[in-house]
Amino acid sequence: MGKKISILGSTGSIGINALKVVSHLKDELDIIYLTAFRNADLLIEQAIYFNPEAICIVDELAYNKVLNAMKSTSIKVLKGRQGLLEIASRQDVDIMLNALVGAAGMEPTLRAIESSVDVALSNKESLVMAGDLIQTALKKSGSKLFPVDSEHSAIWQCLVGEDLADVRGLILTGSGGPFREREISTFSDITLDQALKHPNWEMGNKITIDSATMMNKGLEVIEAYWLFGFKPEKIKIVIHPQSIIHSMIELKDGAIKSQMGVPDMKVPIQYAFTYPRHLEAPWERLNFFDCGDLTFEKPDFERFPCIKLAFDALERLGTSGAALNLANDYAVYRFLKNEIKFTDIPKINLSSLDNHNWIKNPKLDDLKKLDIWVKKHVNNFS
Amino acid sequence: MGKKISILGSTGSIGINALKVVSHLKDELDIIYLTAFRNADLLIEQAIYFNPEAICIVDELAYNKVLNAMKSTSIKVLKGRQGLLEIASRQDVDIMLNALVGAAGMEPTLRAIESSVDVALSNKESLVMAGDLIQTALKKSGSKLFPVDSEHSAIWQCLVGEDLADVRGLILTGSGGPFREREISTFSDITLDQALKHPNWEMGNKITIDSATMMNKGLEVIEAYWLFGFKPEKIKIVIHPQSIIHSMIELKDGAIKSQMGVPDMKVPIQYAFTYPRHLEAPWERLNFFDCGDLTFEKPDFERFPCIKLAFDALERLGTSGAALNLANDYAVYRFLKNEIKFTDIPKINLSSLDNHNWIKNPKLDDLKKLDIWVKKHVNNFS
Repeated sequence: MGKKISILGSTGSIGINALKVVSHLKDELDIIYLTAFRNADLLIEQAIYFNPEAICIVDELAYNKVLNAMKSTSIKVLKGRQGLLEIASRQDVDIMLNALVGAAGMEPTLRAIESSVDVALSNKESLVMAGDLIQTALKKSGSKLFPVDSEHSAIWQCLVGEDLADVRGLILTGSGGPFREREISTFSDITLDQALKHPNWEMGNKITIDSATMMNKGLEVIEAYWLFGFKPEKIKIVIHPQSIIHSMIELKDGAIKSQMGVPDMKVPIQYAFTYPRHLEAPWERLNFFDCGDLTFEKPDFERFPCIKLAFDALERLGTSGAALNLANDYAVYRFLKNEIKFTDIPKINLSSLDNHNWIKNPKLDDLKKLDIWVKKHVNNFS
Repeated sequence: MGKKISILGSTGSIGINALKVVSHLKDELDIIYLTAFRNADLLIEQAIYFNPEAICIVDELAYNKVLNAMKSTSIKVLKGRQGLLEIASRQDVDIMLNALVGAAGMEPTLRAIESSVDVALSNKESLVMAGDLIQTALKKSGSKLFPVDSEHSAIWQCLVGEDLADVRGLILTGSGGPFREREISTFSDITLDQALKHPNWEMGNKITIDSATMMNKGLEVIEAYWLFGFKPEKIKIVIHPQSIIHSMIELKDGAIKSQMGVPDMKVPIQYAFTYPRHLEAPWERLNFFDCGDLTFEKPDFERFPCIKLAFDALERLGTSGAALNLANDYAVYRFLKNEIKFTDIPKINLSSLDNHNWIKNPKLDDLKKLDIWVKKHVNNFS
């Protein structure tokens, strides 16, 4: 028997990649729970192939279809947000991969930690919104958090064997997204199609838009703060358009350690499942003779105000990260529906950060109330 | 009291840099022995500043000068090769830095290991010539070998915390030296001055010429084999003209870890003294916004036949590494005296590798006899 793995969000981009990892490491990893939002067909296919103990479809309209498809199996079918939270709370799991998108992933992360399950965290929004609650829960339960973001996985891999006292700071690399060189004056004309074309990474829609606004890099700064405990001034962003160097640490003696590779989320996903081992994998490997030149640039805070908002939120702490993240979730959702302009996203985020009712030590209930306020605030924007 | 450090070759480029490290870490490191070949003035200056227990001047013509200068101190003065070997054998040392140049460094390395002293090894020739003897001695005495070459230090730093079973291979970077782009047909016209101009690193003459022929990279492949135990086919060379990435390891899951920084030997020297810590250092740090693009190329075995010779020597093992290294030592010496052409160096090295009396398991005496044969062989070349 291998490690027991549950995957929240198995039909999304990260979930699909995670199942490729599990397929090739089938002696090491066993899928015992899968959840999906509304892609019933793919969830059914995955369930038949991986034969978990239970699955959950969150969208209740798709429940009967999934239930019927599982009739001839021993696989239990749960439904709705309630079913998702129930699966996130199961204790018979070695590692739960949280590959949910947006603020909806926060509570499942907390549930798993409270159930003493280690969490492989792709849902950075969990930490951005509730970093303090999560750290407290980790200390109480003893479970561990394994980053799945390529940047944070790179930093984690570089930190292996090092004394944190010897680390001067973290260097998060970022491609700069599709609009790194576009005329700023034309940003308000950016279309949804343009924003959905990422130069290096194939990802879900939400994170692709976040890469285009560079809100993603900002959220990653907040995530790095909560994961590794470095102050904002110790976390630098370096634009590296080729996405070959996934991130770095700077040691106090001047040495810099980096983790590199082709842009492929299967690598950080597998590492989270197999840590501290780097087991054999069949994916494409980096070839230095055809990867081209590696280049570096300063991040442009004027062009991408969302980065600055993240540093501001980190200075303020409390509910600031949650307000920023929730606003961004809803703003991106509205942009994806073509209701607002690309340049409205940072405006909405700033307005929510500055105008929400700030609380120093929010509880889960405070965050839920904040969610209601931010949703309304964003939807009122026009 | 800090760690007790002895430095063989303290007046050379590595020795001088090592003393800068000791100066800034004076609470952590104490110099107790220094040796120099013939630079009496600098050795005297160093001795007065660092106040070691004893020093050695190898060139006996300079002995009286050094002895007189130490009269009013409690510092003992030794002389000659015998004095050097005596200091290399002292047991009251925590780390001996072997910064000697060429084959002369081999026996002192063995002496220190046999005295159960850890060795910070800048003298790669020790391992190239006597890798097998050194590994046997290490196992017997329990002392450790800390690489000081920037490439091997980089690999060592990347390996920290990793399971060797998870490492697919090593990637040694090399600048390619000053003649990477020069017309091959003009190689026989290369002058000493041209060969002594390294694009990135300021180093001693011997290693600068070795960088120009790329014999240095070849010797580093052999060094890596003995240090880390990877077979020749697991050790790759990547030409990286900027010398920012100092070397890399490739993990089995496709992750690549690298160590980077400005080209500064103080970083690997300090790490060898403070391992596993990366203590604060005041040196210049890498700035990604002004370091330029990082580029990569295939090594050109036709242009630089010395690389190929190193792989050949590694396939044959036995005395092959010693024959190659000794020939190169003497050939470079003759080139530095303007007695032979740049293109004679690989010819001499090949001839010595192919024509020496090969022995499978050489003892120290066999290597000494080989030294006599190779010296004559190289000096007969015209």
